[in-house]
Amino acid sequence: MTAHASTIDELTVQRDRARQDHAALAARELKLDLTRGKPSPQQLDLSAGLLESPEAAVSADGTDLRNYGGLQGLPELRAIFSDALQVPVEQLLAAGNSSLELMHDALVFALLGTLPGGQRRWVDEPQIAFLCPVPGYDRHFALCERLGIEMIPVPMTSDGPDMDVVERLAAEDPRVKGIWCVPKYSNPDGAVYSEDAVRRLAAMPTAAPDFRIFWDNAYAVHHLGDEPAAIADLLGLCAEHGNPDRAFVFGSTSKITFAGGGVAFFGSSPANVQWWLGCTAKRSIGPDKINQLRHVRFLRDADGLREHMRRHAAVIRPKFEAVDKILNAELGGTGLAEWTRPEGGYFITVRVPAGCARAVVAKAKEAGIALTPAGATHPRGDDPLDQVIRIAPTYPEQSELEVAIAGFATCVRLVGTEKLLAEHEG
Amino acid sequence: MTAHASTIDELTVQRDRARQDHAALAARELKLDLTRGKPSPQQLDLSAGLLESPEAAVSADGTDLRNYGGLQGLPELRAIFSDALQVPVEQLLAAGNSSLELMHDALVFALLGTLPGGQRRWVDEPQIAFLCPVPGYDRHFALCERLGIEMIPVPMTSDGPDMDVVERLAAEDPRVKGIWCVPKYSNPDGAVYSEDAVRRLAAMPTAAPDFRIFWDNAYAVHHLGDEPAAIADLLGLCAEHGNPDRAFVFGSTSKITFAGGGVAFFGSSPANVQWWLGCTAKRSIGPDKINQLRHVRFLRDADGLREHMRRHAAVIRPKFEAVDKILNAELGGTGLAEWTRPEGGYFITVRVPAGCARAVVAKAKEAGIALTPAGATHPRGDDPLDQVIRIAPTYPEQSELEVAIAGFATCVRLVGTEKLLAEHEG
Repeated sequence: MTAHASTIDELTVQRDRARQDHAALAARELKLDLTRGKPSPQQLDLSAGLLESPEAAVSADGTDLRNYGGLQGLPELRAIFSDALQVPVEQLLAAGNSSLELMHDALVFALLGTLPGGQRRWVDEPQIAFLCPVPGYDRHFALCERLGIEMIPVPMTSDGPDMDVVERLAAEDPRVKGIWCVPKYSNPDGAVYSEDAVRRLAAMPTAAPDFRIFWDNAYAVHHLGDEPAAIADLLGLCAEHGNPDRAFVFGSTSKITFAGGGVAFFGSSPANVQWWLGCTAKRSIGPDKINQLRHVRFLRDADGLREHMRRHAAVIRPKFEAVDKILNAELGGTGLAEWTRPEGGYFITVRVPAGCARAVVAKAKEAGIALTPAGATHPRGDDPLDQVIRIAPTYPEQSELEVAIAGFATCVRLVGTEKLLAEHEG
Repeated sequence: MTAHASTIDELTVQRDRARQDHAALAARELKLDLTRGKPSPQQLDLSAGLLESPEAAVSADGTDLRNYGGLQGLPELRAIFSDALQVPVEQLLAAGNSSLELMHDALVFALLGTLPGGQRRWVDEPQIAFLCPVPGYDRHFALCERLGIEMIPVPMTSDGPDMDVVERLAAEDPRVKGIWCVPKYSNPDGAVYSEDAVRRLAAMPTAAPDFRIFWDNAYAVHHLGDEPAAIADLLGLCAEHGNPDRAFVFGSTSKITFAGGGVAFFGSSPANVQWWLGCTAKRSIGPDKINQLRHVRFLRDADGLREHMRRHAAVIRPKFEAVDKILNAELGGTGLAEWTRPEGGYFITVRVPAGCARAVVAKAKEAGIALTPAGATHPRGDDPLDQVIRIAPTYPEQSELEVAIAGFATCVRLVGTEKLLAEHEG
C-alpha cells in the first residue's frame, strides 16, 4: 500500500487529526466488544419457540426420547439438515451441542484408533501435520496446538485455499493427515470455495492413505442476501474420484437456534460413519434426543429452516452493511485498509498495512473497543505480515456497533498514518 | 455350593420338572428384557416438569443462557448437587448429558496431555493399567479396552474392593494409573464402600505419581429405602492424606431426570479442575446451559432432589422386592443361587454355581428373556468362574418383571440341576 497523501505535511495533518480523534474516543470510556462471532439477543429471540415444551417426548418411530439410546440422533432432525449439509440422511449423525466437540473428538479418535484406510494410529506416527488455510478459525488451530499436530499455513484466496500449494503438500508429505476447511462464508474471510477447489480437494493424490478433509460447514445456511451461495458436493466428489472416505463434514445449529443449546452434526462416508459410531458407542449411550426433538418441532422441515435463516439475515444484514458503510466513509480511498464484503457467515476481515494489525488492536483496546487479537486468524497466533484483523459484527446492538466501527477506523487512521510518516522520515 | 437334593433320584426329579417348566416357558414366546439399567417410563413421567418451558433463559447472575460460554456449567445447578456428590460447588462442573463421556474424556485428556503430578502423557508410557474391581460395570471396561489400557481385576467385597490387593498393586506397579470405583450401590453388586476402604484408597502409596481414582458416583442419591447409605468424603480424605489430586468424581442425572437428556458432573481438586478446564476449553465453548436451567427450575434445591428421588424409590422398590421374593420362592434353599438385596442403585447380582452363568443366560434367551451377557461384569467379558449374572429390574413393568424373573429362576433350576447331576454321574 502507498500513502495517498502526497506530502509529509498532509500526512502529518491526518496523523494529528487521528490522534485527536483517538484521544476523544478514549475519553468516552467505551466498553464495546467485537471479538467473537456470537448471535445477538435479538437473533436468539427468533428461536423462542424452541423453549416451548414438546407435547410428548416421542419420535416419529415411537421411541421414548427420554431414555437411553439412539446414538445416531433423531432421523427426522437429520432429514431437515441433510440437504443443507449435503450429506445423505443415513450418513448424517445428530449429536451433542457443539460441532467443535465433534472435530476435537474426530482428531482424538484418529490419534487413539486407526482410521478406515489408515495403517496405524496417528499417535504412533513420528509427527503429523494439518494444512491450515490462512486466515482461518482460531479454534481449529487451538485444537491442533493442544493435540501436538503441526500446522502448515496455506494461503487463502477468494475461491478457497491455494490449491496448487495444497496439492503439492498433500502429495509430497506423508505427515500431512488433513486440512481444515470452512467452505462457505469462511471464517474470517467470507470466501466461498469454488467448484474447482472442491473438486481438486476431492481428487488430489495424498501421500497419507488416511488423509481427511475437516469440512467445517459452519455457515451452510447463513446467507446475508437473497441469492444463497452454493458449494459443490464434497462427499459426492470424493466418492466419484475414488476417495470415498476422505471427508468429515461438520455442522451445527449454534448460529441457527441457540449457541450452546443447539445440535451438532457429523456426516461422512458409510465406512467413516461406522468407524465413528464404533468410537462414540464406547463414549456415550446417546445424545440429548429431547433437545433434538425440540429442534424438529421448531424448525419443522428444510423450508422452515430456510425461512428461519431469512429472519436471521434480516437482523444481521444491516450490521454488515453498517460496517461497510462506515469503513468506506472513514477509510475509503486512504489506502490504509481493505476489507471483505461477505455474502454470508459471521465475519468481516480487514487488512491493514503490514506491521499495523497488532498496533490497531492495541489502540482500540485503549479506547475500550475489544477486537479479536491480531494474529488469531493464523496458527499459533502468528500473522507474519501482522495485517489481518477479524471483525465480528453480529453481537452488538446496531448503535453500539456503529460507534465501535467508527472508533476502530480512527485507530486504523492513527496507526496507519504514524507508520507512513515513520517510513517517510526513515 | 453343594446339592441339597440328597440323592440322584431327587435331583433327576428336580431336573425333569425344570425341563418341563422351561419347555412351557419357551412355548410362551415371551419377549422380556432385563439387560440394561434403564429407568422405566413411569420413572421418566416423574420428570415431566422438565419439559416445561423455562420462563426466561437467564441465570441467577443475569447471563443469557441461550448464547455461548459458561464452561463450568450453571452455579445454581452445581449447588444443588454439591452435597450429594460431596464436592464443593467451586470444584464441581456441570457438563453435557453423559458422565460416561466425561470418564472417556478424562482418560483421553490424560492419554494426550500430562496430568497434574504426572511426568508424561499416558500415551507415552510403555503400558498403563487400571485396577478393575469385579464384578463391575461393563462400560468402564469397554473404555479401557478401546483405549488400550490393561485391566487388572481386583475382587469386590460387600465393603468395596479388596483393599489389601488394591494397596499392593498400586504401590508396586507403576503401570497402574487408576482404579474404577462405583462407591455407592455399586454396579452390579449394590455394595457400599466402607469408611475404611475410602480412607485406604485416599491414603495408600502409589507407584505412579499421577494415579487417579475414577469415582463414578452414579447412584449417589438412588436409595431404595428410608435410610440412605452414606459414604466417606473421598476428596476431603485425599487432601487430608496429602494426595489432593488423586480423585476424579463423576455423577449425572441420567437416572434422576431423563436418561440421555440429563446433566453430567465432574468434580475434583482445584488443580485437577483447572487442568480439566484447560482441556475442555479447547474442545467446547460450553455445555447446554438451557437444559441445566431446566434442571434447576425442576429440582429447585437439594431438598427438591431428595424428594424427587423418594418418588423414584416408590416406583422401583416394589420391583426389587418382587425379584427377591420370587428368587426366594423359586430358588431359596436349593443351593443353586445366591443374590444381593441392595439398598439402592439399579442392579441385583445373582451368583449361580460355577460354570453355569453362560448356560443360564442362553436358556433364558431360548425362552425370550434377554439378560446381560454372562461375563459382562468382568474385564473383556471374561468371568473366570462363569457364575455372575446381572439383573436389571427397573425398566420392565411390574407384571412383566415378575414373569421374567420366574422364568429366569426356571433356567437356573434347569442348568443347576443338570450340572449337579453331571457331577454326580461323572
